[in-house]
Amino acid sequence: MRIALGIEYDGGPFFGWQIQRITPTVQAELESALSKVAHAPIVVHSGGRTDTGVHAEMQVVHFDTDAQRPLRAWVLGGNVNLHEAASILWAREVPDDFHARFSAVARRYRYRICNRLARPALLRGQTGYVHHAIDVAAMQVGAQALLGEHDFSAYRTVHCQAKSPIKVMQSLEISRVGNEIVFELQATGFLHHMVRNIVGSLLEVGAGTRDPAWIGAVLRSLDRAQAGMTAPSQGLTFLGPIYPDRYALPRVAGLFGAG
Amino acid sequence: MRIALGIEYDGGPFFGWQIQRITPTVQAELESALSKVAHAPIVVHSGGRTDTGVHAEMQVVHFDTDAQRPLRAWVLGGNVNLHEAASILWAREVPDDFHARFSAVARRYRYRICNRLARPALLRGQTGYVHHAIDVAAMQVGAQALLGEHDFSAYRTVHCQAKSPIKVMQSLEISRVGNEIVFELQATGFLHHMVRNIVGSLLEVGAGTRDPAWIGAVLRSLDRAQAGMTAPSQGLTFLGPIYPDRYALPRVAGLFGAG
Repeated sequence: MRIALGIEYDGGPFFGWQIQRITPTVQAELESALSKVAHAPIVVHSGGRTDTGVHAEMQVVHFDTDAQRPLRAWVLGGNVNLHEAASILWAREVPDDFHARFSAVARRYRYRICNRLARPALLRGQTGYVHHAIDVAAMQVGAQALLGEHDFSAYRTVHCQAKSPIKVMQSLEISRVGNEIVFELQATGFLHHMVRNIVGSLLEVGAGTRDPAWIGAVLRSLDRAQAGMTAPSQGLTFLGPIYPDRYALPRVAGLFGAG
Repeated sequence: MRIALGIEYDGGPFFGWQIQRITPTVQAELESALSKVAHAPIVVHSGGRTDTGVHAEMQVVHFDTDAQRPLRAWVLGGNVNLHEAASILWAREVPDDFHARFSAVARRYRYRICNRLARPALLRGQTGYVHHAIDVAAMQVGAQALLGEHDFSAYRTVHCQAKSPIKVMQSLEISRVGNEIVFELQATGFLHHMVRNIVGSLLEVGAGTRDPAWIGAVLRSLDRAQAGMTAPSQGLTFLGPIYPDRYALPRVAGLFGAG
């Protein structure tokens, strides 16, 4: 039986998603918690890796198990055993052809910037921070060059292991909400550090250091050395993968239905 | 010269607002930071004390000083020296008749409840949590009894030192936003634990354990033993005091003007 789960986590206490020598990672904590529910080792596959400090509103994973449990037990039993900075939001049985990574047709991310004179205190772990005025309209003009299918090599890190740097940027919205600037991006996939490099570059346009046209020029250069600073990890939240409708997976946390 | 400051803080790392033997407290950290800017001891007076774990979006303080500093220096210099979980949002010079506590004509609080099957992870330090369905409409009916001038003795803690238990509740709004229930209260003043006791009692109505009319019955009893559970501190945020318009104090964090 194949089970899919939605997972929320605060990236602050974790060394990213993927299991590695340093701990804790979300994957290791999650597998440990689920294995206690199953009374057997569980290995999960995720819809997207996240780096140290990056949050998730809706990571999606799947795993295979012979353990017969009510779907609600994976949520409640899993959360009893899980690190407090992560929470299992829902559980669904999925067909065997579902794969959390390969079935995803798109992924969404949000980047938040606290934009005011005073540094953030209440949200300091969940937002970037820029203390000077930012021209949102200029960033919106620059961002247009990123829409559609492109080779995003200029906006990935040298450590990126993706097979292809070609992705389709389906939407890139930038808005100001009070003292906060919010970036929301949806693409068929994202390269390593791609959101943070795009945001860091757009912020140079917003600050007036660069023209809006520079964003497209960097893209066309295919040269990683051309892009702006990598925006810090704590401002980034993985909103989740998007799957074909036929899997009928929740797009928000389950209220009380659980299953 | 008398200076007023707006302060935001995450109550999580602090043992409340007021200076006491255990540390850190927000007041002690703030006085230490401001004293470094002034090169002289600074004592602040606040618009409202907050308990351990309670947050503030806009605490207001005032202090007197002979130190001549640009207003911007109190914000930027103060924040350089201040605990990372607190931030000075703005500074204004105020007349000598202004007092952060006694000039306030009203105060506002927000209480957040994460209302879903899965416990909160991303917002775990800033919200309460109820995993069963809550009837917001029933709570709204019950809350009506609290509006207006009342003796709120039934909703204060035994440790409350307020001279008078009579306060005017000016508004009490309850709304559901996605998986979250948000309470916003404005009154001429609040007794110790008053918001948390009101929220804890309303949640019993929301759960169906009590009728909406019970909220008013508890109020009229004047008996502290009648009210419901005290809701946990981390869901509570002090939105700030309200002052007469003639002081022209900011109601939101200063963007870039600083002074």
